[in-house]
Amino acid sequence: MSPPAPLDIDMVGVTDTSAVPMPDPLTVNGVPGWREKMAKIPTGVAASCSSDMFKSPACYTKPKAKRFDHLLSIEAKSRKASTLKAAAQYLKNPGIISLGGGLPSAEYFPIEHIDIKVPNPPEFSSEATRKSGSVVRAGKHDIKDGTSLYDLEIALNYGQATGAAQLLRFITEHTEIIHNPPYSDWQCTMTCGSTYAWDTALRVLTERGDYILMEEYTFVSAAETAFPLGLKAVGIPIDEEGLIPEAMDEILSNWDEKARGARKPYVLYTIPTGQNPTGATQSAERRNAVYKVAQKHDVYIVEDEPYYFLQMQPYEFIKSLVPSFLSIDVDGRVCRLESFSKVISPGSRVGWIVASEQMIERFIRNFEVSSQNPSGISQIVLFKLLDEHWGHSGFLDWLIHLRMQYTDRRDALLHSCEKHLPTEIAHWVPPAAGMFHWIEVDWRKHPGVAAGKTREAIEEEIFLSAVEHQVLLSRGSWFKADKSAVMEKMYFRATYAAASSEKIDEAIARFAKCLRDQFGL
Amino acid sequence: MSPPAPLDIDMVGVTDTSAVPMPDPLTVNGVPGWREKMAKIPTGVAASCSSDMFKSPACYTKPKAKRFDHLLSIEAKSRKASTLKAAAQYLKNPGIISLGGGLPSAEYFPIEHIDIKVPNPPEFSSEATRKSGSVVRAGKHDIKDGTSLYDLEIALNYGQATGAAQLLRFITEHTEIIHNPPYSDWQCTMTCGSTYAWDTALRVLTERGDYILMEEYTFVSAAETAFPLGLKAVGIPIDEEGLIPEAMDEILSNWDEKARGARKPYVLYTIPTGQNPTGATQSAERRNAVYKVAQKHDVYIVEDEPYYFLQMQPYEFIKSLVPSFLSIDVDGRVCRLESFSKVISPGSRVGWIVASEQMIERFIRNFEVSSQNPSGISQIVLFKLLDEHWGHSGFLDWLIHLRMQYTDRRDALLHSCEKHLPTEIAHWVPPAAGMFHWIEVDWRKHPGVAAGKTREAIEEEIFLSAVEHQVLLSRGSWFKADKSAVMEKMYFRATYAAASSEKIDEAIARFAKCLRDQFGL
Repeated sequence: MSPPAPLDIDMVGVTDTSAVPMPDPLTVNGVPGWREKMAKIPTGVAASCSSDMFKSPACYTKPKAKRFDHLLSIEAKSRKASTLKAAAQYLKNPGIISLGGGLPSAEYFPIEHIDIKVPNPPEFSSEATRKSGSVVRAGKHDIKDGTSLYDLEIALNYGQATGAAQLLRFITEHTEIIHNPPYSDWQCTMTCGSTYAWDTALRVLTERGDYILMEEYTFVSAAETAFPLGLKAVGIPIDEEGLIPEAMDEILSNWDEKARGARKPYVLYTIPTGQNPTGATQSAERRNAVYKVAQKHDVYIVEDEPYYFLQMQPYEFIKSLVPSFLSIDVDGRVCRLESFSKVISPGSRVGWIVASEQMIERFIRNFEVSSQNPSGISQIVLFKLLDEHWGHSGFLDWLIHLRMQYTDRRDALLHSCEKHLPTEIAHWVPPAAGMFHWIEVDWRKHPGVAAGKTREAIEEEIFLSAVEHQVLLSRGSWFKADKSAVMEKMYFRATYAAASSEKIDEAIARFAKCLRDQFGL
Repeated sequence: MSPPAPLDIDMVGVTDTSAVPMPDPLTVNGVPGWREKMAKIPTGVAASCSSDMFKSPACYTKPKAKRFDHLLSIEAKSRKASTLKAAAQYLKNPGIISLGGGLPSAEYFPIEHIDIKVPNPPEFSSEATRKSGSVVRAGKHDIKDGTSLYDLEIALNYGQATGAAQLLRFITEHTEIIHNPPYSDWQCTMTCGSTYAWDTALRVLTERGDYILMEEYTFVSAAETAFPLGLKAVGIPIDEEGLIPEAMDEILSNWDEKARGARKPYVLYTIPTGQNPTGATQSAERRNAVYKVAQKHDVYIVEDEPYYFLQMQPYEFIKSLVPSFLSIDVDGRVCRLESFSKVISPGSRVGWIVASEQMIERFIRNFEVSSQNPSGISQIVLFKLLDEHWGHSGFLDWLIHLRMQYTDRRDALLHSCEKHLPTEIAHWVPPAAGMFHWIEVDWRKHPGVAAGKTREAIEEEIFLSAVEHQVLLSRGSWFKADKSAVMEKMYFRATYAAASSEKIDEAIARFAKCLRDQFGL
């Protein structure tokens, strides 16, 4: 626990772009040219940085985000910049010797280099990588040696809450290329994963006793992050396209503070693409409608998007992606949670968030005195792979490869469902993204109903019978945002992420047998 | 954001040790023998584990820790185990196919192996490592191939809040060898660094409005972690051995709830060894006295010990270390924050905590829905270095090497202080541990006093004059735990961690010149 010089968000700035005429939006092919014009990347130990160093001039032609001071929690409002921050400014004096910060000397890091074996696009398979992949090396003094912009001397030392400039540059460019937010002062900061970012978002935005808005079936751990903070969830009804904007509007328009014992909710948590657990993906029209309801009721949107690149249409990659909330966010009322977990490695525990400068600054003030920054070892591995080896184009090739792989997996699961499941009682909508398939089972046809059994009891019976049949699925009721809500229907969630096609087919065949046994078919 | 199977603390247990007679405490040399008798290490994806799997039989001859339910916060009390936890139990059925958890398949991790160049004890220098160090490899399927207990297939996937069993084993053994807590049900869990662990400790133990106890001068970021949570700090007077137990007793005995507007504090944050900023180290007697005061007033101790192994006496290593609070903690009222930051790499963002099972379980419930676990990439790098390559004996050799290095650095700084500083006004106690030197300056002899200048104004003037003389030190007032407390004395903190001996000597000579100019000597 030692104080790195903290981020001075005012210290950094974009290079002078006054000579540039009407700038074009950043593209994959435009990155090398823009990098030449960018301010020099700061490469010192725990050097300050911000997305403003890396955003292209096109960003600055847009209006600024609205301010959301009125939505900040007491905790978030009371955060101040670190006391030791004041000292960091003096480090800029050339010739000064610092006996100030307790940063260890690099000679005491017992790692001289790290070599990483990675794929060469487009040969992405494990087998091809083992045979003909490349080895990329991170040495201790590559910056001094002039062989890289990032090295172990920096990555193994303390860092900034934003993460290192070297990786933040890639993340910022990626964000601009894919989402191009419609306001100027957006920023990125790295996080120790999206679960942690969500926990922090709740601490930045809510008070004990508040309600938050969620899809009526949601990633249960996201709800369980909120409950111990004294928060309750209102489940918004969903259909095959996810959130129903009219239902959200109705809940908010008719909010009864007295009856609820809480003020009107103003934070929406949503998984717009390949939703967990339902697999639903909101269309562009749906997102626009939800955004309008959010504007009407001054709701702040946290979009959790780990499955964004696991959309299944396999051509015209960037254009084919459904627009994110971030990309339509004219107000700056969206915080986008981004994750490498589903596209590179969950074990890296590196994610990032995108939001307006005001919000990102409050997150950074929080991170500085809690997680500090994600692992520098993870960061340099990601930098070597994504920035130095693949570049944006190779990364997009990888994402296309992944979505083809997941499309195959999804198709295998759907084929098995069509082949095995009794359609008299089992129904589903093919998921267009993500890793989850949501199977509805018509429990009212179960023989237990006549015997007076409840929906809950029958769900439990089917689940346990499936386990007896040697297949594990997740029970739909586990994913209820509001635990007190009454369920009319019954669902089981199946993932096609981990098992092979053969195993998936066997598992679905077993589940079909279980259902036939249970329903006497 | 996907739910790994969470820790089931009841699922795991030590192997049957009923046949073992009166067991000896674990030693470095005893580890290989004990590992043969241990339960088999769980190596699956996100496999549950706990320190109970790795503690030697000697631990179980001791009484259990007291319970501290009455000190838990509302937030901590309301945390429940994850809903998805229930499903994890079914994974133990052999033959079951899981379509349950959304864990990516290892074929989608684009890293086939990582090679790490590390030192061979006792040749620890960077130069020796570059020339003759070893390369250790982490492959993707080393577990299946039978070449290692840990591999990238596991490290790159989701994990448990405890961290991976493979590294937790090493950490647990290390804790037992060094601290051997005097109660039986202690546990370790990894953390994303000590700053994060301290933030979590505050959320587990305190409510908005509470006071916490700290050394009157303390690591300012630790205080700044607490303030936005609505906490205030009481500074306990210190001397050259740190915390004064009589002063702590007096503050607690005379606590006036009405005057303070808050209940009596029951959380102590202390840095017992090489304290930041004062460099003070509490003796064994001092720690015992502080512990007795904590018992008398039912205070829970959080000991933050990043500098524990930077104690300066260079012989009889383990025996020469001053006993930790953990090692005298008969009640289980200590949570020890441990860090690799000062002894391996701050950038790893891997630390761990040690406390009673009750407290560790509450931390784990928190981590599961926030940080989840430290980076798996960091964990496997540490495992390869510490467990597979060095072992406990090599790690202790490294720690001895470090403390000799820091002893040399401290001696160089002290020598420069003796050589340059005007002893008419500058006084210090040689630090016995850590990386900080606390220099008192007799400000009452400053010519500004006669002109009516305050202590604060003179401190500012000296600090800015030092910057003009091209040397950066930290101002003592930055480290006040209680910002409203009146300072009688004036201090500057210098670190000997980062600069070379030559630079340190030059910096102290500059500071001496600054002081002579300021005081007209």
